Amino acid sequence: MSLVDLTGASCPLPVSETEKVTLGHGSGGQLSAELLRDVLLPALGAAAGQGGGVPEDAALLDIEGTAVVMSTDSFVVSPLFFPGGDIGSLSIHGTVNDLAMMGATPLALAIAYVIEEGFELADLRRVTASVGAAASAVGVPVVTGDTKVVGRGAADGIFVTTTGIGRRLPGANVSAAFARPGDVIVVSGPVGSHGTAILSARESLGFDTEITSDSRPLHRLVAAMVAQAGPGIHAMRDPTRGGVASALNEIAAVSGIGIEIDERAVPVPVPVAAACELLGLDPLHVANEGCLVAVTEPAAADALLTVMRSLPEGRHATRLGEVVADHPGRVVMRTLLGGTRIIDMLIGEQLPRIC
Amino acid sequence: MSLVDLTGASCPLPVSETEKVTLGHGSGGQLSAELLRDVLLPALGAAAGQGGGVPEDAALLDIEGTAVVMSTDSFVVSPLFFPGGDIGSLSIHGTVNDLAMMGATPLALAIAYVIEEGFELADLRRVTASVGAAASAVGVPVVTGDTKVVGRGAADGIFVTTTGIGRRLPGANVSAAFARPGDVIVVSGPVGSHGTAILSARESLGFDTEITSDSRPLHRLVAAMVAQAGPGIHAMRDPTRGGVASALNEIAAVSGIGIEIDERAVPVPVPVAAACELLGLDPLHVANEGCLVAVTEPAAADALLTVMRSLPEGRHATRLGEVVADHPGRVVMRTLLGGTRIIDMLIGEQLPRIC
Repeated sequence: MSLVDLTGASCPLPVSETEKVTLGHGSGGQLSAELLRDVLLPALGAAAGQGGGVPEDAALLDIEGTAVVMSTDSFVVSPLFFPGGDIGSLSIHGTVNDLAMMGATPLALAIAYVIEEGFELADLRRVTASVGAAASAVGVPVVTGDTKVVGRGAADGIFVTTTGIGRRLPGANVSAAFARPGDVIVVSGPVGSHGTAILSARESLGFDTEITSDSRPLHRLVAAMVAQAGPGIHAMRDPTRGGVASALNEIAAVSGIGIEIDERAVPVPVPVAAACELLGLDPLHVANEGCLVAVTEPAAADALLTVMRSLPEGRHATRLGEVVADHPGRVVMRTLLGGTRIIDMLIGEQLPRIC
Repeated sequence: MSLVDLTGASCPLPVSETEKVTLGHGSGGQLSAELLRDVLLPALGAAAGQGGGVPEDAALLDIEGTAVVMSTDSFVVSPLFFPGGDIGSLSIHGTVNDLAMMGATPLALAIAYVIEEGFELADLRRVTASVGAAASAVGVPVVTGDTKVVGRGAADGIFVTTTGIGRRLPGANVSAAFARPGDVIVVSGPVGSHGTAILSARESLGFDTEITSDSRPLHRLVAAMVAQAGPGIHAMRDPTRGGVASALNEIAAVSGIGIEIDERAVPVPVPVAAACELLGLDPLHVANEGCLVAVTEPAAADALLTVMRSLPEGRHATRLGEVVADHPGRVVMRTLLGGTRIIDMLIGEQLPRIC
């Protein structure tokens, strides 16, 4: 993700009081945002790019008149291999999707490994083959890389950092800051699968139905969406760490608008819902790696949903809610029981090392 | 560094026989090259970009007619803070220099942290302030970033992965494959300081004279060199992991030429030479983070050295040797005693976690 500066968030565990980095600082939720706002951005000082502090999944650069998008992510998922993917494919999908959320098609990827001494070469081959297969399926080359090895106990197996650059699609003009009252919120597919799959793989919970990560690339879906609706799409976000709740809260905070969603519209697969119930997780806070939320002009919404549903990765696309002028910065859900409840950003750490 | 495919190197510890990743695989020397050639590139398959398998410090891309260079490196140096720098400044210099070695000026950097739970926030601030100061001094923005946190014992403090993109300077046309017989080899300054400084900091060896890392950005030096000699510079390399010996061996292997250097011409500071003697290190294998070797047309060499010496980072630039048609793929040193000795690539690991 890109440099984030969320304002107005209250702080349940002030950075200055912990004085040490906690797992919650890597959650992608409120503590992550505060670490960035209170520690990292002030320390970076004038070197921090991306004016305005708008949180985006990738940075937008102008290179000789070409709109180039750049994104970087480290992947530390545990276990390395899980139902529906592994750290290799995940590292490609995550970065391709961060570029896509800025309306960009990927041009090139760079991969850096930090490997623990003693890591099995067979696993390194398997991870790298997965990187290669995922990149080939996307159609983007891995143009450069790096490998560092640290002693036993100084890392946990392998960490993968993937950086991508892409070219913004003609007509794309999305930003977390561009949501307006009246806009429609759509989601491209079921939510909650990735985080639940990781946790069930980690804990060997043995659910009756195996839950599979939704890890997959979304650049083709985005290309079809942009071709259909162009600048009618105001914002896109892939709800990874922190889930749909955190993605919507970021948009609400940065755009200064309110968001209302319908509980009945949130597409949670039955096994995921059951697992979340058992594990005490809110599916809206669980990480996804293969779906997106988009904020679109109301007039464009129906045609956009039709186009999304024409692709496998958007087959279950649905309308989730709308942008309102009320309660700016807040996300509210109309519950099945007819009430409303505030959907907060994930605060600390729900599931460490989910991606 | 970029994807490397060195051919013809004999293998002292075949990848297939170890079956586990060793520290030597991260050395930047022969084992690293073999890991890439025998494991990583085959596993990546068709997704591996950069045709021809020429080892470069960065990949060269064409984006809408603009020559864009991209490089990624993970930094795992231990200790995090050392005389002359820290992991933050090092991560900026290392990546800026990799871009520079392809004749590029940096445009944007991305930084990804993997942090161990419990890492001191004061240290995180210090590292990040160093990132910011180094990037500001270079004049390149940090446009995007990522932070992941792993549990105690799953990483060692902090690892930093820095990815840079740059624009190739007009007139630059360098490649490790472009060295030709008759070319002159120059080095921009003293060698051996970085690795020796790290080791002395790590071991608290307490040398009489503190040895300071040479960590610094070389993009201004390269810009001046390219402005002076343009395509008369055939190859450039910053001799980081694996040292000057490995950098020259890579050029010799890829260009299919021989290299001869003079022992008396190798600029090793006296304290570095003394420390290497004590520690049993060959200064030619010790990592540097603030000097470069360049291979240039003989007619351009003198003017190039004059320009290099006009900048602080090139003040001690000197002629190291020349490219020959004999013994292709081999680097030979004429010793002080009048004999010759073969300078091999670093084979295994001399100093783990040097960068």
